[in-house]
Amino acid sequence: MSETSSVGIVTAQTAHFSEPLKLKSGEVLPAYDLTYETYGTLNADKSNAVLICHALSGNHHVAGKYAETDKYPGWWDNLIGPGRPLDTNRFFVIGLNNLGGCHGSSGPSSTNPATGKPWGADFPVVTVEDWVESQARLADYLGIDQLAAVIGGSLGGMQALQWTMSYPDRVRHALVIASAPNLTAQNMAFNEVARQAIMTDPEFYDGHYYEHGAVPRRGLRIARMLGHITYLSDDAMGAKFGRKLRDGEIKYGFGVEFEMESYLRYQGDKFAGEFDANTYLRMTRALDYFDPALEYGGNLSAALANVKARFLVVSFTSDWRFSPARSREIMKALLDNECSVSYAEVTAAHGHDAFLMPDPHYHNILRNYLQNIRTGGTE
Amino acid sequence: MSETSSVGIVTAQTAHFSEPLKLKSGEVLPAYDLTYETYGTLNADKSNAVLICHALSGNHHVAGKYAETDKYPGWWDNLIGPGRPLDTNRFFVIGLNNLGGCHGSSGPSSTNPATGKPWGADFPVVTVEDWVESQARLADYLGIDQLAAVIGGSLGGMQALQWTMSYPDRVRHALVIASAPNLTAQNMAFNEVARQAIMTDPEFYDGHYYEHGAVPRRGLRIARMLGHITYLSDDAMGAKFGRKLRDGEIKYGFGVEFEMESYLRYQGDKFAGEFDANTYLRMTRALDYFDPALEYGGNLSAALANVKARFLVVSFTSDWRFSPARSREIMKALLDNECSVSYAEVTAAHGHDAFLMPDPHYHNILRNYLQNIRTGGTE
Repeated sequence: MSETSSVGIVTAQTAHFSEPLKLKSGEVLPAYDLTYETYGTLNADKSNAVLICHALSGNHHVAGKYAETDKYPGWWDNLIGPGRPLDTNRFFVIGLNNLGGCHGSSGPSSTNPATGKPWGADFPVVTVEDWVESQARLADYLGIDQLAAVIGGSLGGMQALQWTMSYPDRVRHALVIASAPNLTAQNMAFNEVARQAIMTDPEFYDGHYYEHGAVPRRGLRIARMLGHITYLSDDAMGAKFGRKLRDGEIKYGFGVEFEMESYLRYQGDKFAGEFDANTYLRMTRALDYFDPALEYGGNLSAALANVKARFLVVSFTSDWRFSPARSREIMKALLDNECSVSYAEVTAAHGHDAFLMPDPHYHNILRNYLQNIRTGGTE
Repeated sequence: MSETSSVGIVTAQTAHFSEPLKLKSGEVLPAYDLTYETYGTLNADKSNAVLICHALSGNHHVAGKYAETDKYPGWWDNLIGPGRPLDTNRFFVIGLNNLGGCHGSSGPSSTNPATGKPWGADFPVVTVEDWVESQARLADYLGIDQLAAVIGGSLGGMQALQWTMSYPDRVRHALVIASAPNLTAQNMAFNEVARQAIMTDPEFYDGHYYEHGAVPRRGLRIARMLGHITYLSDDAMGAKFGRKLRDGEIKYGFGVEFEMESYLRYQGDKFAGEFDANTYLRMTRALDYFDPALEYGGNLSAALANVKARFLVVSFTSDWRFSPARSREIMKALLDNECSVSYAEVTAAHGHDAFLMPDPHYHNILRNYLQNIRTGGTE
C-alpha cells in the first residue's frame, strides 16, 4: 500500500440559507446556517463530490486538524486523505454539521432571529428527511448537481439511505455503514432513558437553560455513559476492562472501584462539558423517527422502489445496536428492487464503534469500493 | 395436572438479631432485624425448609396476599402454593428481605441505633456472602439446621450458589436460575449508570436525603427505566411494543410518542415512589462484587471445591443480561467437582424476566426437580 496522509490543516466555513425550510413536522425554519468543511478539490465537471453524514454526536470536522497543536483530528480522519480509502487526491469531500447541531450550524443553542435569544426548546424537531433537504441545498450552494457518493455510519447511514430516496438522481453511490432501516424498540428505549435523564435534570428548565446560565450536565453525562455501553459490545468491554479494579483492591463503597467505571465517568464528564443537551434530544428523536417503510405499510422494498444509486452496505458482527440483521433488511429491500448492491459483514470485536475504527479488512472494503467510483465522464 | 392454588393470606414477621454481624467489608453491624414470611408447615424433623432468595428489587413477600383486596400477590406467587411447582403441601418455604433492603429488614432507611436517625449513607455495603450469613442466622432462629433447598433467580441465584460454598453441610439442593458466577463488564456498566443517575440527583444529599425530607426520585426513575430495558430482550420489547405510536400519529416532540416510552415512564415513576435509592445502590454493588472465583485466581472450579449440594441450573435463551453461557460456566465448574447437577436451557422470549414467568416448560422443570427432593428421612 502506498503512503497515506491526513488532509492536514483545515478550516470550517459557514453557508447562510435565507430560503425558508419546511420541515417534516410542518414547522418552518425561516433561515439557517450550515457549517461545513471540504477536503480535496472539486473537479471541472463537479462529478467527484462525496458527502459525509455524521451520527448522533458528530459534526462537520470529519478530517484534518485546525492547528498542528490539536490533540485529535476530525472524527473520521483515518478514512479520509491523500491515499486513504476515501482518497482526497480523487474526491472532493464535504462534511457538515446537521441542523439542530451544536457546532456551528443552526440549532437550539444558536440565536432565534425572532427573539434575539437562543432558540432553546423552541428550535424545531428535525428529521433525517429534513437533513437531506438541507444537505441538498448545501450541494446547490456549492454548485454540485450530483454527488458521487453519500457516506454515513449509524444515523449517518440513515441519511445516506434517505438521499437515495429523496434525490434518486442526485446521488450515484450510497455507503450505508452500521445502520438500520429504523430503530428497534430496544434502541428507542435507550434513547428515551437518555432523554429522560436530560429532561428531568433540574438544570434543564424545559430546554431554556441558556437563559438561566445553567447546563443540564448531570443528565447529559448519564445519557453519554449509557450511550457508551451501547457503542461497545459486551465482549469488547470485557476485553478492554473486564472486572479490573482500579486500585487493585475492593473498597466497599460507591466511588470508582472498577476501571470500567472510571472510563464511563470520564467519557460522561467530557461530553457533558462539550455537547448541547437540546441537540442530544433532537439527534435521538431523528433516530427514533427514521422509518422510511412507515408510509408504505412497513414495506421497505416499496419505500426504496425509486432508488437509482448503487450501494455498499457494511455491518459488524459484534454490533448489537445496529446488528447485521438490520443491514440485511436493507440489502433485501434493495435486491427486491434489483439495485446494484455490495454487502460486507465484517468480523469485528468493537461493537457499533467498529465503523469508526481503522480495521484493515473494513478499510480495504471501503477503499476497493470507492476506487471503482468513476470521477469525470460517466459510469 | 391437579388443581393448584395460592398460599392465601399471609403475614410478615420480623426477627431481631442482637449478635453483631461482621461484614465482608470489615464493618460490623451491631444488631439488625430481618423481615420474613413463611408458607407451609415445618415438618417434625425440620427437613422440608426451602429458602427463597430475592433479586435486586425483591423482598420477603414472595407468595400470597396480605388481604383479599390486594391487587397483586407476592412476586413469585406463580411458583409457590398447594400443588404448585414449589408445593407448600410438602415444603416449608421462607422468604426474607435482605439486609440493606427497604421492606422491613435493617437497611439505609431504618433507624441507626447509634444516632436515632435513619442510617442513610452510613448503612454499610453488604455482599452476597453477608446475606448468606444473615440468612443462616435466620435459619438458626427458626430452628432449621439444614435447608432442603435454596432457590433464587438472578442475584437470588448468586445467593443460592454462595450458600453451597459458605455452608456446604446446611443446604441439600441449590436452584440457581438465570444467574451468573459474576457480572460481565457490561452488566457492571449498566449498574454504574444507574447509580450515577441516583447519586448525582440533587435530592440525594450524599445519601442522607431522609433528613432533608427529600427523595432522589429522578435518579431512581432513570435507574429503573434502564433496568427494564435489560430485563427484557430486544425481541420481547419488539413483540410487546415494537414501534407502536401511542396516539397513532407522530407529534414531533419530546412527550410520549411510542407505547414503549409510556411503559418505561410508568415503570420508572412507580418504582421511584416505592423503592429506596440507598437500597438500590447497595443491591447493585452486591451484584458487582459477587465473584467467588476471585480469591482462587479466577478459577471457579476451585471456588466450588467444597460444595456438597445437588444443583439445578436454569437459563433462558433470550436472557442477554445473564446469558446461558454464564450458567454453563457454573455447570462446568460443578462438573469439574463431580457434583450432581441438572441443567436446563429454556427457550423463552422474555429475556431475563423469564425466570419470573409461569412458562409451562420452565415450571415443569422446577416441579420435576422439586418433586424428587425427599422431605423426611434421608436422601
